[in-house]
Amino acid sequence: MTSVKIQTAAPYAVEVGAGLLERAGETARSCWKGPAAAVVTDSNVAPLYLERCLDSLKEAGLRAVSFVFLAGEASKNGKTYLELLEFLAQNQITRADGLIALGGGVVGDLTGFAAATFLRGIPFLQLPTTLLAAVDASVGGKTAIDLEHGKNLAGAFYQPRAVLCDLDCLKTLPAEVFSDGCAEVIKYGMIGDEALLSLLNAPGEPDWEDIIARCVAQKGRLVEEDEFDTGARQLLNLGHTIGHGIEACSGYQISHGKAVAIGMVLITRAAASYGLCPPEVLPGLLSLLNKYGLPERTDYDAQALYQRTLSDKKRSGDHIQLVVPAAWGKSVLHSLPVGELETWIERGLSCRAQ
Amino acid sequence: MTSVKIQTAAPYAVEVGAGLLERAGETARSCWKGPAAAVVTDSNVAPLYLERCLDSLKEAGLRAVSFVFLAGEASKNGKTYLELLEFLAQNQITRADGLIALGGGVVGDLTGFAAATFLRGIPFLQLPTTLLAAVDASVGGKTAIDLEHGKNLAGAFYQPRAVLCDLDCLKTLPAEVFSDGCAEVIKYGMIGDEALLSLLNAPGEPDWEDIIARCVAQKGRLVEEDEFDTGARQLLNLGHTIGHGIEACSGYQISHGKAVAIGMVLITRAAASYGLCPPEVLPGLLSLLNKYGLPERTDYDAQALYQRTLSDKKRSGDHIQLVVPAAWGKSVLHSLPVGELETWIERGLSCRAQ
Repeated sequence: MTSVKIQTAAPYAVEVGAGLLERAGETARSCWKGPAAAVVTDSNVAPLYLERCLDSLKEAGLRAVSFVFLAGEASKNGKTYLELLEFLAQNQITRADGLIALGGGVVGDLTGFAAATFLRGIPFLQLPTTLLAAVDASVGGKTAIDLEHGKNLAGAFYQPRAVLCDLDCLKTLPAEVFSDGCAEVIKYGMIGDEALLSLLNAPGEPDWEDIIARCVAQKGRLVEEDEFDTGARQLLNLGHTIGHGIEACSGYQISHGKAVAIGMVLITRAAASYGLCPPEVLPGLLSLLNKYGLPERTDYDAQALYQRTLSDKKRSGDHIQLVVPAAWGKSVLHSLPVGELETWIERGLSCRAQ
Repeated sequence: MTSVKIQTAAPYAVEVGAGLLERAGETARSCWKGPAAAVVTDSNVAPLYLERCLDSLKEAGLRAVSFVFLAGEASKNGKTYLELLEFLAQNQITRADGLIALGGGVVGDLTGFAAATFLRGIPFLQLPTTLLAAVDASVGGKTAIDLEHGKNLAGAFYQPRAVLCDLDCLKTLPAEVFSDGCAEVIKYGMIGDEALLSLLNAPGEPDWEDIIARCVAQKGRLVEEDEFDTGARQLLNLGHTIGHGIEACSGYQISHGKAVAIGMVLITRAAASYGLCPPEVLPGLLSLLNKYGLPERTDYDAQALYQRTLSDKKRSGDHIQLVVPAAWGKSVLHSLPVGELETWIERGLSCRAQ
């Protein structure tokens, strides 16, 4: 097992290893004083892991209740959020008790927001069951629900008391879902961890415990530096600016991981064409994406992507902050007048620029 | 005009004076950089003050939109909260813009919670239009909505960027509503401000600017000392523990202010009977309540009040923290085994104990 400390205002540990689900009970006991725990999970995860999680909590002497919602981003809305709050009140969860988010990013975002706001804030634990949630959603304290007018428009910055990444849970992931997580893992390497890229490139079965711990440690460093997302943390958006445009163009039929993969390719190719990135970075990225089952191209044109990218909430005034690879294993922030973004996307799409 | 600085993690000023509604625009300009302001108010306040508020914002060059909901505690729920969030998204309010809470405690609680959570937090201003909101709800950062299972069960600790208490707004309050606020004003005197009690006792029209500023300053000191409500801030609950029981017994037909007034009488009488409070405090309190149109007795019996008081969320384990007057203008915390509370209420109700 590997433990990574996250030094936010209220510090906590992310544990990565096999068999951690069985330690949910003792971890909950160490994270809050009250006698109860409410497990929140979805209809995909519940049949696989809920019973073992509840057993662990009961063995540790906790009163355990569970709230299961229909799996999918469509459930991450105000209706499910209010139902969860009423469930907590009905089950007499107090400020001394805690919540457990057992599942992927949707479960973590929704549970975190409920924990941040029920009785003005109660403790919560994260038990991510996808690679994406393990390396991304479980660190950083960004909790949210979607509104009808857009994704993640309501939420809070709120840190968990602990995160348990059980590697055994990742083994049951469908290949497509696992690949989605790989896109974020590769992103961490491209942002600032050349050694991580070497681990991913190495022959044989990758050491996922080491890889996940490196991703978590890097995100932790960026979050510590910038808890409220106004500076260095923006590096985490590598591939995400245009990636969000790709997701939006597809009506969210293209998954987040695939969109981020294509977004990284486009931004790297454009940066190379402007002379901001050495030419060998793009082939290295393409080779990694290929190894982990991720796409590199899209059929949407520059104008469509530009329109959808602009409506993203990360825009600030008449400039947009792009994250641009500047070397193998190193990215930098690059402020761009909004009007120039379409040309960047055009260059990113154009194979001649390679 | 009197200005009181509140030194929370993000400090802000509470301004008390006449004609401040007209300064909403310039204040908003100084509190956020974005071009827009969304005013939130209710159907009672909108006909009186909304137009003047919007005019002031427009004169200051802001794009101003407004959200008006049906007046009353029944609107402080998840449904109105989600409608408000969708309204903000639809009107393209960004993190650089801000909200303005124009109204009483319900408006402030709901608007503050929306500001705390829309886009994970945007700026907001308070423009309290009731005495109760001016002295109580506008300072402290407690925002909330009610759930079906109880009042204020979801919310956040979130501070406004500024508070403008316009004394002119208080002049239009119905006498009953003004009296409600007086109960909280008297509470501040009883907690720790003998000079405030003298101001309230003085003949002639009271100096409300001075009185409100003193209340705000005292609440500010307690909030600074204890931003997240775990210690000294509990003094603010004087009269509230049993007061909540009285409100609940009446099905919330007895107003908060009246319930707090009766709650203060009961706790003072009981404290005197235990020798914890000098005998002259109770007649002093009764005289003040009488002067400001507030009640001093209830027909509910000790058992009913005890049951309803126990279900309050301020309870922690098997003890309850009572706030007890220890002298004229001074109260202290007194930890009581839950089981003894019924006897306290009995003594509080009994006239013989005077």
